[in-house]
Amino acid sequence: MRICRFNDDRIGIVRPDGVHDVTTILEKLPLVRYPFPLGDPLIVNLEAWRPELEALADKAPALNANELRFKSPVANPTKIIGVPTNYQAHRDEMAADKTITTQSQAIPERGIDSVLVQGLFLKANSSLVGPSEGIATRFPDRRNDHEAELGVIIGKTGSDIPEDKAYDYIVGYALAMDMVVRGKEDRSFRKSIDTYSVLGPWLVTKDEVPDPQNLNFELKVNGESRQKANTKDMIMYIKQQISWGSTFYTLHPGDIIMTGTCQGVGPVKPGDMVDFEFEILGNMKVPVRAHEVR
Amino acid sequence: MRICRFNDDRIGIVRPDGVHDVTTILEKLPLVRYPFPLGDPLIVNLEAWRPELEALADKAPALNANELRFKSPVANPTKIIGVPTNYQAHRDEMAADKTITTQSQAIPERGIDSVLVQGLFLKANSSLVGPSEGIATRFPDRRNDHEAELGVIIGKTGSDIPEDKAYDYIVGYALAMDMVVRGKEDRSFRKSIDTYSVLGPWLVTKDEVPDPQNLNFELKVNGESRQKANTKDMIMYIKQQISWGSTFYTLHPGDIIMTGTCQGVGPVKPGDMVDFEFEILGNMKVPVRAHEVR
Repeated sequence: MRICRFNDDRIGIVRPDGVHDVTTILEKLPLVRYPFPLGDPLIVNLEAWRPELEALADKAPALNANELRFKSPVANPTKIIGVPTNYQAHRDEMAADKTITTQSQAIPERGIDSVLVQGLFLKANSSLVGPSEGIATRFPDRRNDHEAELGVIIGKTGSDIPEDKAYDYIVGYALAMDMVVRGKEDRSFRKSIDTYSVLGPWLVTKDEVPDPQNLNFELKVNGESRQKANTKDMIMYIKQQISWGSTFYTLHPGDIIMTGTCQGVGPVKPGDMVDFEFEILGNMKVPVRAHEVR
Repeated sequence: MRICRFNDDRIGIVRPDGVHDVTTILEKLPLVRYPFPLGDPLIVNLEAWRPELEALADKAPALNANELRFKSPVANPTKIIGVPTNYQAHRDEMAADKTITTQSQAIPERGIDSVLVQGLFLKANSSLVGPSEGIATRFPDRRNDHEAELGVIIGKTGSDIPEDKAYDYIVGYALAMDMVVRGKEDRSFRKSIDTYSVLGPWLVTKDEVPDPQNLNFELKVNGESRQKANTKDMIMYIKQQISWGSTFYTLHPGDIIMTGTCQGVGPVKPGDMVDFEFEILGNMKVPVRAHEVR
Protein backbone atom coordinates (compact mmCIF):
# COMPACT_ATOMS: atom_id res chain seq x y z
CA MET A 1 0.00 0.00 0.00
CA ARG A 2 1.09 3.53 -0.81
CA ILE A 3 -0.36 6.28 1.34
CA CYS A 4 0.05 10.00 0.78
CA ARG A 5 -0.94 13.34 2.32
CA PHE A 6 -1.90 15.87 -0.33
CA ASN A 7 -3.32 19.34 -0.87
CA ASP A 8 -5.06 20.56 2.31
CA ASP A 9 -4.05 17.55 4.47
CA ARG A 10 -6.12 15.06 2.54
CA ILE A 11 -5.13 11.38 2.77
CA GLY A 12 -4.84 9.27 -0.36
CA ILE A 13 -4.07 5.72 -1.41
CA VAL A 14 -1.81 5.71 -4.46
CA ARG A 15 -2.61 3.10 -7.12
CA PRO A 16 -1.53 2.70 -10.76
CA ASP A 17 -4.66 4.54 -11.95
CA GLY A 18 -4.19 7.52 -9.60
CA VAL A 19 -4.74 8.72 -6.04
CA HIS A 20 -7.89 7.62 -4.20
CA ASP A 21 -9.08 10.03 -1.51
CA VAL A 22 -9.59 8.20 1.80
CA THR A 23 -9.63 11.26 4.06
CA THR A 24 -12.73 10.02 5.87
CA ILE A 25 -10.49 7.50 7.66
CA LEU A 26 -9.39 10.42 9.86
CA GLU A 27 -12.82 10.39 11.53
CA LYS A 28 -11.65 7.26 13.34
CA LEU A 29 -8.93 9.25 15.10
CA PRO A 30 -9.71 10.45 18.62
CA LEU A 31 -10.25 14.16 19.19
CA VAL A 32 -7.40 15.55 21.26
CA ARG A 33 -7.03 18.84 23.12
CA TYR A 34 -3.98 18.59 25.35
CA PRO A 35 -1.38 17.28 25.49
CA PHE A 36 -0.78 15.82 22.06
CA PRO A 37 0.53 12.25 22.39
CA LEU A 38 3.98 11.38 21.06
CA GLY A 39 3.95 9.88 17.59
CA ASP A 40 1.99 10.47 14.40
CA PRO A 41 -1.71 9.69 14.98
CA LEU A 42 -2.27 8.23 11.52
CA ILE A 43 0.97 6.23 11.25
CA VAL A 44 0.35 4.53 14.60
CA ASN A 45 -2.90 3.07 13.17
CA LEU A 46 -1.77 2.42 9.61
CA GLU A 47 -1.35 -1.35 9.78
CA ALA A 48 -4.57 -1.92 11.72
CA TRP A 49 -6.65 0.28 9.44
CA ARG A 50 -5.32 -1.14 6.23
CA PRO A 51 -8.38 -3.21 5.22
CA GLU A 52 -10.61 -0.17 5.75
CA LEU A 53 -8.21 2.08 3.84
CA GLU A 54 -8.24 -0.31 0.88
CA ALA A 55 -12.05 -0.52 0.99
CA LEU A 56 -12.36 3.27 1.04
CA ALA A 57 -9.92 3.51 -1.87
CA ASP A 58 -11.99 1.00 -3.88
CA LYS A 59 -14.99 3.34 -3.63
CA ALA A 60 -13.17 6.61 -4.39
CA PRO A 61 -12.49 7.88 -7.93
CA ALA A 62 -8.87 8.08 -9.11
CA LEU A 63 -7.34 11.56 -9.01
CA ASN A 64 -4.51 12.51 -11.34
CA ALA A 65 -1.33 12.50 -9.22
CA ASN A 66 0.22 15.16 -11.46
CA GLU A 67 -2.42 17.63 -10.32
CA LEU A 68 -1.90 17.09 -6.58
CA ARG A 69 0.46 18.79 -4.15
CA PHE A 70 2.21 16.16 -2.03
CA LYS A 71 3.16 16.92 1.56
CA SER A 72 5.27 14.78 3.87
CA PRO A 73 3.44 11.46 4.39
CA VAL A 74 4.41 11.76 8.06
CA ALA A 75 2.76 14.84 9.56
CA ASN A 76 3.90 14.57 13.18
CA PRO A 77 7.21 12.83 13.70
CA THR A 78 8.49 12.85 17.27
CA LYS A 79 12.00 12.98 15.88
CA ILE A 80 13.89 12.92 12.60
CA ILE A 81 17.09 10.90 12.89
CA GLY A 82 20.06 11.06 10.54
CA VAL A 83 22.87 8.57 9.92
CA PRO A 84 26.21 10.28 9.20
CA THR A 85 28.42 9.39 6.20
CA ASN A 86 26.90 5.94 5.77
CA TYR A 87 28.17 5.09 2.26
CA GLN A 88 31.89 4.45 1.79
CA ALA A 89 32.19 6.43 -1.46
CA HIS A 90 30.55 9.43 0.28
CA ARG A 91 32.89 8.93 3.25
CA ASP A 92 35.79 9.13 0.79
CA GLU A 93 34.53 12.29 -0.96
CA MET A 94 33.96 13.94 2.44
CA ALA A 95 37.55 13.17 3.45
CA ALA A 96 38.91 14.48 0.14
CA ASP A 97 36.92 17.75 -0.05
CA LYS A 98 37.23 20.15 2.87
CA THR A 99 34.50 22.37 1.43
CA ILE A 100 32.00 19.63 2.30
CA THR A 101 32.79 19.64 5.97
CA THR A 102 35.28 21.40 8.16
CA GLN A 103 34.44 19.39 11.26
CA SER A 104 37.79 18.03 12.31
CA GLN A 105 36.78 15.06 14.44
CA ALA A 106 39.01 12.08 13.80
CA ILE A 107 36.86 9.48 12.02
CA PRO A 108 38.11 6.04 10.97
CA GLU A 109 38.63 5.70 7.21
CA ARG A 110 36.56 2.57 6.75
CA GLY A 111 34.09 0.23 8.40
CA ILE A 112 31.29 0.43 10.92
CA ASP A 113 33.43 2.36 13.40
CA SER A 114 33.29 5.36 11.07
CA VAL A 115 29.55 5.58 11.85
CA LEU A 116 29.66 4.42 15.48
CA VAL A 117 32.19 7.08 16.46
CA GLN A 118 29.98 9.86 15.10
CA GLY A 119 26.65 8.75 16.53
CA LEU A 120 23.25 9.36 15.01
CA PHE A 121 22.11 12.98 14.77
CA LEU A 122 18.81 14.87 14.82
CA LYS A 123 17.05 17.17 12.37
CA ALA A 124 14.39 19.58 13.65
CA ASN A 125 10.76 18.57 13.13
CA SER A 126 10.16 22.16 11.99
CA SER A 127 12.40 21.46 8.97
CA LEU A 128 10.10 18.78 7.50
CA VAL A 129 8.27 19.35 4.21
CA GLY A 130 6.91 17.35 1.31
CA PRO A 131 8.09 17.71 -2.29
CA SER A 132 5.35 20.19 -3.27
CA GLU A 133 6.57 22.66 -0.65
CA GLY A 134 10.07 22.74 -2.13
CA ILE A 135 13.38 23.79 -0.60
CA ALA A 136 14.10 27.40 0.40
CA THR A 137 17.87 27.84 0.60
CA ARG A 138 19.54 30.19 3.10
CA PHE A 139 23.10 31.50 3.39
CA PRO A 140 23.72 31.84 -0.39
CA ASP A 141 27.45 32.38 0.21
CA ARG A 142 27.74 28.85 1.59
CA ARG A 143 27.25 25.44 -0.03
CA ASN A 144 23.69 24.16 0.30
CA ASP A 145 23.90 20.49 -0.66
CA HIS A 146 21.40 17.81 -1.59
CA GLU A 147 21.73 14.42 0.08
CA ALA A 148 19.55 11.66 -1.39
CA GLU A 149 18.60 8.96 1.11
CA LEU A 150 16.24 6.12 1.88
CA GLY A 151 13.74 7.26 4.52
CA VAL A 152 12.66 4.59 7.00
CA ILE A 153 9.43 5.25 8.91
CA ILE A 154 8.89 3.70 12.31
CA GLY A 155 5.44 2.18 12.88
CA LYS A 156 5.32 1.36 16.58
CA THR A 157 6.89 2.37 19.86
CA GLY A 158 10.08 0.58 20.77
CA SER A 159 13.13 0.77 23.01
CA ASP A 160 16.20 -1.51 23.23
CA ILE A 161 15.15 -3.30 20.05
CA PRO A 162 17.30 -6.31 19.10
CA GLU A 163 18.58 -6.31 15.51
CA ASP A 164 16.60 -9.42 14.61
CA LYS A 165 13.37 -7.66 15.63
CA ALA A 166 14.17 -4.30 14.00
CA TYR A 167 12.01 -4.80 10.91
CA ASP A 168 8.95 -5.39 13.11
CA TYR A 169 9.18 -1.69 14.02
CA ILE A 170 9.22 -0.39 10.45
CA VAL A 171 5.91 0.54 8.83
CA GLY A 172 7.33 1.65 5.49
CA TYR A 173 9.69 3.70 3.36
CA ALA A 174 9.83 6.97 1.47
CA LEU A 175 12.30 9.10 -0.47
CA ALA A 176 14.22 11.41 1.86
CA MET A 177 16.34 14.48 1.18
CA ASP A 178 18.66 15.45 4.01
CA MET A 179 19.53 18.99 2.91
CA VAL A 180 22.47 20.69 4.62
CA VAL A 181 24.36 23.95 4.62
CA ARG A 182 28.06 23.11 4.78
CA GLY A 183 30.23 24.54 7.52
CA LYS A 184 31.68 24.02 10.96
CA GLU A 185 28.56 24.08 13.11
CA ASP A 186 26.82 21.11 14.70
CA ARG A 187 25.05 18.94 12.12
CA SER A 188 21.76 19.23 14.01
CA PHE A 189 21.91 23.02 13.35
CA ARG A 190 23.09 23.00 9.72
CA LYS A 191 20.59 20.28 8.74
CA SER A 192 17.58 21.80 10.54
CA ILE A 193 16.92 24.86 8.40
CA ASP A 194 13.23 25.16 7.48
CA THR A 195 12.48 22.91 4.43
CA TYR A 196 15.84 21.05 4.73
CA SER A 197 14.12 17.70 5.43
CA VAL A 198 12.05 16.54 2.47
CA LEU A 199 10.01 13.32 2.70
CA GLY A 200 7.80 11.99 -0.05
CA PRO A 201 6.08 11.60 -2.30
CA TRP A 202 4.24 8.91 -0.28
CA LEU A 203 4.86 6.15 2.23
CA VAL A 204 5.25 2.66 0.74
CA THR A 205 4.43 -0.04 3.27
CA LYS A 206 7.18 -2.55 3.92
CA ASP A 207 5.38 -5.53 2.33
CA GLU A 208 5.92 -3.88 -1.09
CA VAL A 209 9.69 -3.73 -0.57
CA PRO A 210 11.23 -7.23 -0.64
CA ASP A 211 14.70 -5.97 0.32
CA PRO A 212 15.19 -2.35 1.44
CA GLN A 213 18.95 -3.03 1.45
CA ASN A 214 18.92 -3.57 -2.29
CA LEU A 215 17.27 -0.56 -3.94
CA ASN A 216 18.75 1.59 -6.70
CA PHE A 217 18.27 5.33 -6.44
CA GLU A 218 19.31 8.40 -8.39
CA LEU A 219 19.09 12.14 -7.82
CA LYS A 220 19.34 14.62 -10.68
CA VAL A 221 19.56 18.41 -10.62
CA ASN A 222 18.17 20.14 -13.71
CA GLY A 223 18.33 16.81 -15.52
CA GLU A 224 22.00 16.16 -14.69
CA SER A 225 22.73 13.01 -12.69
CA ARG A 226 24.40 13.83 -9.37
CA GLN A 227 23.90 10.89 -7.00
CA LYS A 228 23.43 7.27 -8.04
CA ALA A 229 23.85 4.24 -5.80
CA ASN A 230 22.18 1.23 -4.23
CA THR A 231 21.13 0.90 -0.57
CA LYS A 232 23.24 -2.27 -0.34
CA ASP A 233 26.24 0.07 -0.18
CA MET A 234 25.26 1.38 3.27
CA ILE A 235 28.00 0.94 5.87
CA MET A 236 25.58 0.52 8.79
CA TYR A 237 22.46 -1.38 7.77
CA ILE A 238 18.91 -0.35 8.72
CA LYS A 239 18.46 -3.05 11.34
CA GLN A 240 21.53 -1.87 13.22
CA GLN A 241 20.47 1.79 12.96
CA ILE A 242 17.17 0.94 14.64
CA SER A 243 18.72 -1.31 17.25
CA TRP A 244 21.54 1.10 18.11
CA GLY A 245 19.34 4.20 18.16
CA SER A 246 16.83 2.52 20.43
CA THR A 247 19.49 1.91 23.06
CA PHE A 248 19.59 5.72 23.46
CA TYR A 249 15.96 6.71 22.97
CA THR A 250 12.51 5.30 22.48
CA LEU A 251 11.37 5.23 18.87
CA HIS A 252 7.81 6.41 18.28
CA PRO A 253 5.38 5.83 15.38
CA GLY A 254 6.21 8.34 12.67
CA ASP A 255 9.85 8.74 13.66
CA ILE A 256 11.86 9.10 10.47
CA ILE A 257 15.33 7.67 9.95
CA MET A 258 17.24 9.24 7.09
CA THR A 259 19.62 6.38 6.49
CA GLY A 260 22.58 8.27 5.04
CA THR A 261 23.55 9.55 1.62
CA CYS A 262 25.81 8.22 -1.12
CA GLN A 263 28.58 9.89 -3.12
CA GLY A 264 27.80 12.82 -5.41
CA VAL A 265 26.48 15.38 -2.93
CA GLY A 266 26.55 18.84 -4.41
CA PRO A 267 25.08 22.32 -4.21
CA VAL A 268 21.66 23.50 -5.28
CA LYS A 269 20.64 27.10 -5.91
CA PRO A 270 17.33 28.94 -6.27
CA GLY A 271 15.66 28.03 -9.56
CA ASP A 272 17.00 24.48 -9.62
CA MET A 273 14.71 21.48 -9.95
CA VAL A 274 15.64 18.27 -8.16
CA ASP A 275 14.42 15.00 -9.65
CA PHE A 276 14.79 12.09 -7.24
CA GLU A 277 13.88 8.49 -8.08
CA PHE A 278 13.95 5.34 -5.98
CA GLU A 279 13.46 1.80 -7.22
CA ILE A 280 9.99 0.47 -6.21
CA LEU A 281 9.23 3.54 -4.06
CA GLY A 282 8.61 6.17 -6.75
CA ASN A 283 9.96 9.53 -7.75
CA MET A 284 9.47 13.18 -6.84
CA LYS A 285 10.37 16.59 -8.18
CA VAL A 286 11.47 19.18 -5.62
CA PRO A 287 11.86 22.84 -6.66
CA VAL A 288 14.49 25.07 -5.05
CA ARG A 289 13.88 28.74 -4.21
CA ALA A 290 15.55 31.37 -2.02
CA HIS A 291 14.40 31.91 1.56
CA GLU A 292 12.80 35.32 1.93
CA VAL A 293 13.24 37.32 5.13
CA ARG A 294 9.85 38.85 5.92
CA MET B 1 2.41 34.11 36.85
CA ARG B 2 3.72 30.60 37.46
CA ILE B 3 2.04 27.81 35.56
CA CYS B 4 2.62 24.09 36.04
CA ARG B 5 1.50 20.73 34.69
CA PHE B 6 1.05 18.18 37.43
CA ASN B 7 -0.18 14.65 38.17
CA ASP B 8 -2.36 13.39 35.33
CA ASP B 9 -1.80 16.42 33.03
CA ARG B 10 -3.61 18.87 35.27
CA ILE B 11 -2.77 22.56 34.89
CA GLY B 12 -2.05 24.70 37.93
CA ILE B 13 -1.22 28.27 38.87
CA VAL B 14 1.50 28.36 41.51
CA ARG B 15 1.04 30.95 44.28
CA PRO B 16 2.68 31.38 47.69
CA ASP B 17 -0.17 29.45 49.34
CA GLY B 18 0.00 26.50 46.94
CA VAL B 19 -1.07 25.27 43.52
CA HIS B 20 -4.49 26.28 42.21
CA ASP B 21 -6.02 23.83 39.73
CA VAL B 22 -7.10 25.64 36.54
CA THR B 23 -7.40 22.56 34.30
CA THR B 24 -10.79 23.72 33.01
CA ILE B 25 -8.90 26.30 30.89
CA LEU B 26 -8.09 23.40 28.55
CA GLU B 27 -11.74 23.34 27.43
CA LYS B 28 -10.96 26.49 25.47
CA LEU B 29 -8.50 24.57 23.31
CA PRO B 30 -9.77 23.34 19.95
CA LEU B 31 -10.29 19.63 19.48
CA VAL B 32 -7.78 18.30 16.98
CA ARG B 33 -7.62 15.04 15.07
CA TYR B 34 -4.96 15.34 12.39
CA PRO B 35 -2.43 16.72 11.86
CA PHE B 36 -1.36 18.21 15.15
CA PRO B 37 -0.21 21.81 14.62
CA LEU B 38 3.38 22.78 15.40
CA GLY B 39 3.84 24.30 18.83
CA ASP B 40 2.43 23.66 22.31
CA PRO B 41 -1.33 24.33 22.30
CA LEU B 42 -1.39 25.79 25.81
CA ILE B 43 1.79 27.87 25.56
CA VAL B 44 0.61 29.54 22.36
CA ASN B 45 -2.42 30.92 24.27
CA LEU B 46 -0.75 31.61 27.61
CA GLU B 47 -0.48 35.39 27.39
CA ALA B 48 -3.98 35.87 25.98
CA TRP B 49 -5.62 33.61 28.54
CA ARG B 50 -3.82 35.08 31.52
CA PRO B 51 -6.75 37.05 33.00
CA GLU B 52 -8.95 33.97 32.83
CA LEU B 53 -6.22 31.78 34.32
CA GLU B 54 -5.85 34.17 37.25
CA ALA B 55 -9.63 34.29 37.74
CA LEU B 56 -9.84 30.48 37.74
CA ALA B 57 -6.99 30.33 40.24
CA ASP B 58 -8.78 32.79 42.54
CA LYS B 59 -11.71 30.37 42.76
CA ALA B 60 -9.71 27.15 43.22
CA PRO B 61 -8.44 25.90 46.60
CA ALA B 62 -4.68 25.80 47.20
CA LEU B 63 -3.09 22.36 46.86
CA ASN B 64 0.10 21.49 48.72
CA ALA B 65 2.91 21.58 46.13
CA ASN B 66 4.85 18.98 48.08
CA GLU B 67 2.15 16.43 47.38
CA LEU B 68 2.06 16.97 43.60
CA ARG B 69 4.05 15.33 40.83
CA PHE B 70 5.36 18.00 38.47
CA LYS B 71 5.76 17.25 34.78
CA SER B 72 7.42 19.46 32.17
CA PRO B 73 5.43 22.72 31.95
CA VAL B 74 5.82 22.45 28.18
CA ALA B 75 4.06 19.31 26.94
CA ASN B 76 4.60 19.61 23.18
CA PRO B 77 7.75 21.43 22.16
CA THR B 78 8.47 21.44 18.44
CA LYS B 79 12.14 21.41 19.28
CA ILE B 80 14.53 21.54 22.21
CA ILE B 81 17.59 23.64 21.41
CA GLY B 82 20.89 23.57 23.28
CA VAL B 83 23.69 26.14 23.44
CA PRO B 84 27.15 24.52 23.65
CA THR B 85 29.79 25.48 26.26
CA ASN B 86 28.24 28.88 26.93
CA TYR B 87 30.02 29.77 30.20
CA GLN B 88 33.74 30.52 30.09
CA ALA B 89 34.61 28.56 33.25
CA HIS B 90 32.80 25.51 31.79
CA ARG B 91 34.64 26.07 28.49
CA ASP B 92 37.88 25.97 30.45
CA GLU B 93 37.00 22.78 32.37
CA MET B 94 35.96 21.09 29.11
CA ALA B 95 39.31 21.97 27.55
CA ALA B 96 41.21 20.70 30.59
CA ASP B 97 39.38 17.39 31.08
CA LYS B 98 39.28 15.00 28.14
CA THR B 99 36.88 12.69 29.99
CA ILE B 100 34.21 15.35 29.53
CA THR B 101 34.41 15.34 25.78
CA THR B 102 36.55 13.64 23.23
CA GLN B 103 35.20 15.60 20.29
CA SER B 104 38.30 17.06 18.75
CA GLN B 105 36.88 20.02 16.80
CA ALA B 106 39.09 23.07 17.08
CA ILE B 107 37.18 25.61 19.18
CA PRO B 108 38.50 29.09 20.02
CA GLU B 109 39.58 29.45 23.65
CA ARG B 110 37.53 32.54 24.45
CA GLY B 111 34.78 34.80 23.22
CA ILE B 112 31.62 34.51 21.17
CA ASP B 113 33.39 32.63 18.37
CA SER B 114 33.71 29.63 20.70
CA VAL B 115 29.91 29.31 20.52
CA LEU B 116 29.41 30.46 16.91
CA VAL B 117 31.84 27.87 15.56
CA GLN B 118 29.93 25.05 17.24
CA GLY B 119 26.40 26.04 16.34
CA LEU B 120 23.28 25.33 18.37
CA PHE B 121 22.30 21.70 18.79
CA LEU B 122 19.08 19.71 19.24
CA LYS B 123 17.80 17.38 21.93
CA ALA B 124 15.04 14.88 21.08
CA ASN B 125 11.51 15.80 22.15
CA SER B 126 11.18 12.20 23.37
CA SER B 127 13.85 12.95 26.00
CA LEU B 128 11.72 15.59 27.82
CA VAL B 129 10.45 14.98 31.35
CA GLY B 130 9.52 16.94 34.44
CA PRO B 131 11.26 16.61 37.81
CA SER B 132 8.77 14.06 39.20
CA GLU B 133 9.62 11.63 36.43
CA GLY B 134 13.32 11.64 37.32
CA ILE B 135 16.37 10.69 35.30
CA ALA B 136 17.02 7.09 34.19
CA THR B 137 20.74 6.76 33.40
CA ARG B 138 22.06 4.46 30.68
CA PHE B 139 25.57 3.23 29.83
CA PRO B 140 26.78 2.92 33.45
CA ASP B 141 30.39 2.47 32.29
CA ARG B 142 30.36 6.01 30.87
CA ARG B 143 30.03 9.41 32.57
CA ASN B 144 26.42 10.58 32.80
CA ASP B 145 26.67 14.27 33.71
CA HIS B 146 24.28 16.88 35.05
CA GLU B 147 24.26 20.27 33.34
CA ALA B 148 22.27 22.98 35.14
CA GLU B 149 20.84 25.64 32.83
CA LEU B 150 18.33 28.42 32.43
CA GLY B 151 15.49 27.22 30.22
CA VAL B 152 13.95 29.85 27.94
CA ILE B 153 10.49 29.08 26.56
CA ILE B 154 9.38 30.61 23.28
CA GLY B 155 5.84 32.04 23.26
CA LYS B 156 5.13 32.86 19.63
CA THR B 157 6.19 31.88 16.15
CA GLY B 158 9.16 33.76 14.75
CA SER B 159 11.83 33.65 12.07
CA ASP B 160 14.76 35.99 11.37
CA ILE B 161 14.16 37.76 14.68
CA PRO B 162 16.36 40.83 15.28
CA GLU B 163 18.18 40.86 18.64
CA ASP B 164 16.28 43.92 19.85
CA LYS B 165 12.98 42.08 19.33
CA ALA B 166 14.11 38.75 20.80
CA TYR B 167 12.45 39.20 24.20
CA ASP B 168 9.08 39.70 22.50
CA TYR B 169 9.26 36.01 21.56
CA ILE B 170 9.90 34.73 25.08
CA VAL B 171 6.90 33.70 27.20
CA GLY B 172 8.85 32.64 30.29
CA TYR B 173 11.57 30.66 32.01
CA ALA B 174 12.10 27.40 33.85
CA LEU B 175 14.89 25.35 35.35
CA ALA B 176 16.48 23.08 32.77
CA MET B 177 18.76 20.07 33.11
CA ASP B 178 20.65 19.17 29.94
CA MET B 179 21.77 15.65 30.89
CA VAL B 180 24.45 14.03 28.75
CA VAL B 181 26.40 10.81 28.43
CA ARG B 182 30.02 11.75 27.69
CA GLY B 183 31.76 10.37 24.64
CA LYS B 184 32.66 10.93 21.03
CA GLU B 185 29.24 10.79 19.38
CA ASP B 186 27.19 13.70 18.10
CA ARG B 187 25.77 15.84 20.93
CA SER B 188 22.25 15.43 19.58
CA PHE B 189 22.60 11.67 20.19
CA ARG B 190 24.34 11.72 23.58
CA LYS B 191 21.94 14.36 24.96
CA SER B 192 18.72 12.76 23.64
CA ILE B 193 18.50 9.70 25.84
CA ASP B 194 14.99 9.29 27.34
CA THR B 195 14.68 11.53 30.47
CA TYR B 196 17.90 13.48 29.65
CA SER B 197 16.00 16.77 29.24
CA VAL B 198 14.39 17.88 32.49
CA LEU B 199 12.24 21.05 32.58
CA GLY B 200 10.47 22.33 35.65
CA PRO B 201 9.10 22.69 38.14
CA TRP B 202 6.89 25.30 36.44
CA LEU B 203 7.03 28.07 33.86
CA VAL B 204 7.56 31.58 35.29
CA THR B 205 6.28 34.26 32.93
CA LYS B 206 8.84 36.82 31.86
CA ASP B 207 7.23 39.76 33.72
CA GLU B 208 8.34 38.15 37.00
CA VAL B 209 11.98 38.08 35.89
CA PRO B 210 13.42 41.63 35.74
CA ASP B 211 16.73 40.48 34.24
CA PRO B 212 17.14 36.87 33.06
CA GLN B 213 20.83 37.65 32.46
CA ASN B 214 21.35 38.19 36.17
CA LEU B 215 20.08 35.14 38.04
CA ASN B 216 22.02 33.04 40.52
CA PHE B 217 21.61 29.28 40.33
CA GLU B 218 23.03 26.25 42.09
CA LEU B 219 22.83 22.51 41.55
CA LYS B 220 23.59 20.04 44.32
CA VAL B 221 23.90 16.26 44.23
CA ASN B 222 23.07 14.48 47.50
CA GLY B 223 23.41 17.84 49.27
CA GLU B 224 26.87 18.59 47.87
CA SER B 225 27.20 21.75 45.79
CA ARG B 226 28.35 20.96 42.24
CA GLN B 227 27.41 23.88 40.00
CA LYS B 228 27.00 27.49 41.09
CA ALA B 229 26.98 30.52 38.82
CA ASN B 230 25.01 33.49 37.54
CA THR B 231 23.41 33.79 34.11
CA LYS B 232 25.37 37.02 33.55
CA ASP B 233 28.36 34.75 32.91
CA MET B 234 26.89 33.41 29.67
CA ILE B 235 29.17 33.92 26.68
CA MET B 236 26.32 34.26 24.17
CA TYR B 237 23.35 36.07 25.65
CA ILE B 238 19.74 34.94 25.27
CA LYS B 239 18.80 37.63 22.76
CA GLN B 240 21.58 36.53 20.42
CA GLN B 241 20.67 32.84 20.84
CA ILE B 242 17.12 33.60 19.69
CA SER B 243 18.18 35.88 16.87
CA TRP B 244 20.90 33.55 15.57
CA GLY B 245 18.80 30.39 15.87
CA SER B 246 15.92 32.01 14.03
CA THR B 247 18.13 32.67 11.00
CA PHE B 248 18.26 28.86 10.60
CA TYR B 249 14.79 27.78 11.64
CA THR B 250 11.40 29.09 12.67
CA LEU B 251 10.86 29.15 16.41
CA HIS B 252 7.46 27.87 17.55
CA PRO B 253 5.49 28.39 20.80
CA GLY B 254 6.81 25.91 23.34
CA ASP B 255 10.25 25.60 21.79
CA ILE B 256 12.74 25.30 24.63
CA ILE B 257 16.21 26.82 24.59
CA MET B 258 18.60 25.31 27.13
CA THR B 259 20.97 28.24 27.36
CA GLY B 260 24.18 26.44 28.32
CA THR B 261 25.69 25.19 31.54
CA CYS B 262 28.32 26.58 33.90
CA GLN B 263 31.39 25.00 35.45
CA GLY B 264 31.08 22.06 37.82
CA VAL B 265 29.45 19.46 35.57
CA GLY B 266 29.85 16.00 37.01
CA PRO B 267 28.47 12.49 37.04
CA VAL B 268 25.28 11.21 38.63
CA LYS B 269 24.46 7.59 39.39
CA PRO B 270 21.31 5.66 40.28
CA GLY B 271 20.15 6.52 43.78
CA ASP B 272 21.38 10.12 43.63
CA MET B 273 19.10 13.05 44.33
CA VAL B 274 19.64 16.28 42.42
CA ASP B 275 18.58 19.52 44.08
CA PHE B 276 18.48 22.43 41.65
CA GLU B 277 17.62 26.01 42.62
CA PHE B 278 17.28 29.15 40.55
CA GLU B 279 16.88 32.69 41.87
CA ILE B 280 13.28 33.92 41.40
CA LEU B 281 12.27 30.81 39.41
CA GLY B 282 12.16 28.19 42.15
CA ASN B 283 13.73 24.85 42.91
CA MET B 284 13.21 21.21 42.09
CA LYS B 285 14.41 17.82 43.26
CA VAL B 286 15.15 15.25 40.57
CA PRO B 287 15.79 11.60 41.52
CA VAL B 288 18.21 9.45 39.51
CA ARG B 289 17.59 5.77 38.76
CA ALA B 290 18.96 3.18 36.35
CA HIS B 291 17.25 2.57 32.99
CA GLU B 292 15.72 -0.88 32.85
CA VAL B 293 15.71 -2.87 29.63
CA ARG B 294 12.30 -4.49 29.37
